[in-house]
Amino acid sequence: MSRTDKRVLTYDTTLRDGAQGEGVSFSHAGKLRLALRLDRVGVDYIEGGYAGSNRREMEFFAAVRREKLAHARIVAFGSTRRARARVGSDPLVASLLAVGTEVVAVAGKAWGLHVREVLRASRRENRAMIADTVGYLKERGREVFFDAEHFFDGCKEDPALALEAVDAAVGAGCDAVVLCDTNGGCLPHEVFELTRMVVGRVRVPVAVHCHNDAGLAVANTLEAVRAGAAQVQGTVNGYGERCGNANLCAVVPGLILKMGRRCLAPGALPKLRELSLFVDDLVNVRPDPRAPYVGRSAFSHKAGQHVNAVRKNPRTFEHVPPETVGNERHVLVSELSGGSNVLLKAVELGLGRKESAEGVRDVLEALKHLESRGYAFEAADASFRILVQKVLKKHRSFFDLEGFRVIVEKRGKDQPCISEATIKVRVKDSREQTVAEGDGPVHALDGALRKALIRFYPQIARVALTDYRVRILDPQEATAATTRVLIESTDGAETWGTVGVSENIIQASWEALVDSMEYKLFREEEKSRRPRRGPRRKAR
Amino acid sequence: MSRTDKRVLTYDTTLRDGAQGEGVSFSHAGKLRLALRLDRVGVDYIEGGYAGSNRREMEFFAAVRREKLAHARIVAFGSTRRARARVGSDPLVASLLAVGTEVVAVAGKAWGLHVREVLRASRRENRAMIADTVGYLKERGREVFFDAEHFFDGCKEDPALALEAVDAAVGAGCDAVVLCDTNGGCLPHEVFELTRMVVGRVRVPVAVHCHNDAGLAVANTLEAVRAGAAQVQGTVNGYGERCGNANLCAVVPGLILKMGRRCLAPGALPKLRELSLFVDDLVNVRPDPRAPYVGRSAFSHKAGQHVNAVRKNPRTFEHVPPETVGNERHVLVSELSGGSNVLLKAVELGLGRKESAEGVRDVLEALKHLESRGYAFEAADASFRILVQKVLKKHRSFFDLEGFRVIVEKRGKDQPCISEATIKVRVKDSREQTVAEGDGPVHALDGALRKALIRFYPQIARVALTDYRVRILDPQEATAATTRVLIESTDGAETWGTVGVSENIIQASWEALVDSMEYKLFREEEKSRRPRRGPRRKAR
Repeated sequence: MSRTDKRVLTYDTTLRDGAQGEGVSFSHAGKLRLALRLDRVGVDYIEGGYAGSNRREMEFFAAVRREKLAHARIVAFGSTRRARARVGSDPLVASLLAVGTEVVAVAGKAWGLHVREVLRASRRENRAMIADTVGYLKERGREVFFDAEHFFDGCKEDPALALEAVDAAVGAGCDAVVLCDTNGGCLPHEVFELTRMVVGRVRVPVAVHCHNDAGLAVANTLEAVRAGAAQVQGTVNGYGERCGNANLCAVVPGLILKMGRRCLAPGALPKLRELSLFVDDLVNVRPDPRAPYVGRSAFSHKAGQHVNAVRKNPRTFEHVPPETVGNERHVLVSELSGGSNVLLKAVELGLGRKESAEGVRDVLEALKHLESRGYAFEAADASFRILVQKVLKKHRSFFDLEGFRVIVEKRGKDQPCISEATIKVRVKDSREQTVAEGDGPVHALDGALRKALIRFYPQIARVALTDYRVRILDPQEATAATTRVLIESTDGAETWGTVGVSENIIQASWEALVDSMEYKLFREEEKSRRPRRGPRRKAR
Repeated sequence: MSRTDKRVLTYDTTLRDGAQGEGVSFSHAGKLRLALRLDRVGVDYIEGGYAGSNRREMEFFAAVRREKLAHARIVAFGSTRRARARVGSDPLVASLLAVGTEVVAVAGKAWGLHVREVLRASRRENRAMIADTVGYLKERGREVFFDAEHFFDGCKEDPALALEAVDAAVGAGCDAVVLCDTNGGCLPHEVFELTRMVVGRVRVPVAVHCHNDAGLAVANTLEAVRAGAAQVQGTVNGYGERCGNANLCAVVPGLILKMGRRCLAPGALPKLRELSLFVDDLVNVRPDPRAPYVGRSAFSHKAGQHVNAVRKNPRTFEHVPPETVGNERHVLVSELSGGSNVLLKAVELGLGRKESAEGVRDVLEALKHLESRGYAFEAADASFRILVQKVLKKHRSFFDLEGFRVIVEKRGKDQPCISEATIKVRVKDSREQTVAEGDGPVHALDGALRKALIRFYPQIARVALTDYRVRILDPQEATAATTRVLIESTDGAETWGTVGVSENIIQASWEALVDSMEYKLFREEEKSRRPRRGPRRKAR
């Protein structure tokens, strides 16, 4: 059953099934950009959307036709004709033709429950709906994929009905049968066995389309390939209705790296993480740090022993080399850190191996002291970088705080809360005093600091705070406890994290704010010193 | 191979492996709360942490010993003795005994790569390390689980070495063998086959411990059970190093609902979503809306056709009924929490079934409004209770805010930050104006509020705030975003949670503070009306 030399075709449905996900939507331009990107990495089929569902979908099909795709073929998705109607007069079937794609996907029922309770049609009518529609589209020159909706659930309940549906499509000339776990609840061995049965039965290629409601979509997809499926369907990052579709960012490396199949364009795999981040960006979703293969934490090592072992041989705690999927190793500086963590981390951040090796003991010392006070640098690379600079006596302050005052006032039960911050800072021998209001005390402080700095450092206008997190470290002491604030900032090109710790949340926030601004200014200076340097080399 | 009537034991390692996850850390109190919660749902084994790794871990073992766990047994985790050393003089093995748990887990090497390159020991020494350590702990009366680290990778490379390691542990009397996919890169059929081989070979129960680096941890765990494994290991929400561990919130319903096994306590499954949210809250991580079974979107229906079909018969697009795992269906056009949930929650909180049934529609309405503004009541029982009282027009205010002002000031770079709060409240027709300093703005507010109330309500002196958590709800807007504050309070006998939401963190904290004090006063009043009532009955 193993065909290790065979190429597995990929069918991306991010633009159709992915867009069914809660909070997921694509702009018209975003759809086109994604289609071009998928084409570039060698995806074989790109499902563009429901034909005929609305004007915007139709516009996409028209627009993508004007693009020169190098490899991928656009697929229009639709259903069989309605029950008790003529295929030639079904407006949705007509739309499937109207969009002008070479390939169309036709969904039909393969589960008795749906035939009875949703279609309210006879088994015979269901077969006719499938055969009529597939035949009609084939006669008009289309490549037709038949989506056997709920195939696995249907097969478990009534295999004869499910297989009748498949046979009807094959008999009418469909070019591939897509076995769908539409509800996402099937187990891997069920998918394996039922796929193998169909592969042994039909003469056309078999595809698999899984959902992740039981957390098994990736496994089910790989098992189907092991059983002979020649095409995998899924979405980038597993977007999709409910718990999502099979995540192609996990399926594809599984096929290539673990099952020895060919997939996508040669050399595309190292672009996988980039693709994943691109799509998250497109729909404005926070990347899942724990995503298999492509997540930021996928190759992060925290425990001291693991870090030591990975230095000896990365295979000891990495199932694949991170660079094969365009990811990289991260060493987390945590309370369990030993010297090797700090050294690796310093190198990862671009400090020369020699200089950081020299200062590593001092850095460790400072780190230990700060961690015992509640600092954590795992998500605060920029603060760690500034710390290293300070310990190595390479840090220069871009500004100096002389003081601040924050007032939060509520003048009556139903009055709004007003926040005002005043700060005094010394910048380049000038003493600046500014005041700003904000939605809350930290927002007000941020406003006042920007006012004070902008004249001297106009580049800080580009810095935006993208996340702000607060953790109280010792819950026993509740409001008097130590507060850790993590801030994430971006200038559009780079993203960095900073940390502040204090009994006082305002003071902790101030520290993290200051580190963020200083990091930006430090990086600018660094770049201006090394003007024509390429992208930072990866840590190794 | 199918043993559908057999109970599968659950082994939770959230506190040990879960805490290795990037950004995951537990407070001492949080660890205890989680252990009690896991015990309550019927988890069989709770791995408490590394024995001997640091003082805080040791404190947890001591503290949890003082708790009365109804069912679960605490496990201390450690390793075999060091290479070329005596087991009796190994300090970490001594720690494993010192923590005083009945059960210990001993990790040993089952992969040649690790034996050669990390241990730098001979195969024979590796076997001796395992046998010595297991034997030593068995002689001292412990139940010993042997963690065969990297078992599957090891077995694929050199089955003889991997099986030798297992045999050494079994020969020395270990009570269970844990087959680990430590790097998380194995495929389901590999896990199935290798587990089946070990199950057929050893006379002790076999457990499985999977990581999710290839997106297959849940599938691999279920496949191991199908092959005869009797115990599953994992973490709540799949927290863990790199891509995380097997997610028990997907494994357990898979076992119960799809494989017909028994697992956890009878009736625990409908508490699964609550458990998942509780743990996310504890570590201050955003719940994954797409999480299988327990995610907010897991039963969300967006497409019109799906919604219609689900109305006809939920099985058409739901692989399991949402209520079996404590989740609920969402129709994404009109978001509405189910009335039955609200009713159940109200009953759980001690309101009579009859009175809450009458007001349920009004409560739902209010809840919907508040949730849309960012309130969340999962961890804020007391605020929910006050909300219900307010909607049912049964609430009476114990005090009324007229205004507050908080000043946080830092007068120089190295000066401390000073926080001062002034409040004006009306209490029992008296107008109180108080001022207090604190370690931070919220602490100062808390102090001022207590000063104002104590004369009228001396019982509030017993209220202590035990936890204070902050979450920023819309990360895109950073410091200007909506802030949700959760406060946990106790009076020694009862513990309650309250919530506040605002753009302004001080205002949000104030709301949660006020709810906490009001809840205490309300409960006192309630008790004085029903003086000899026993402890509050559990909802069911």
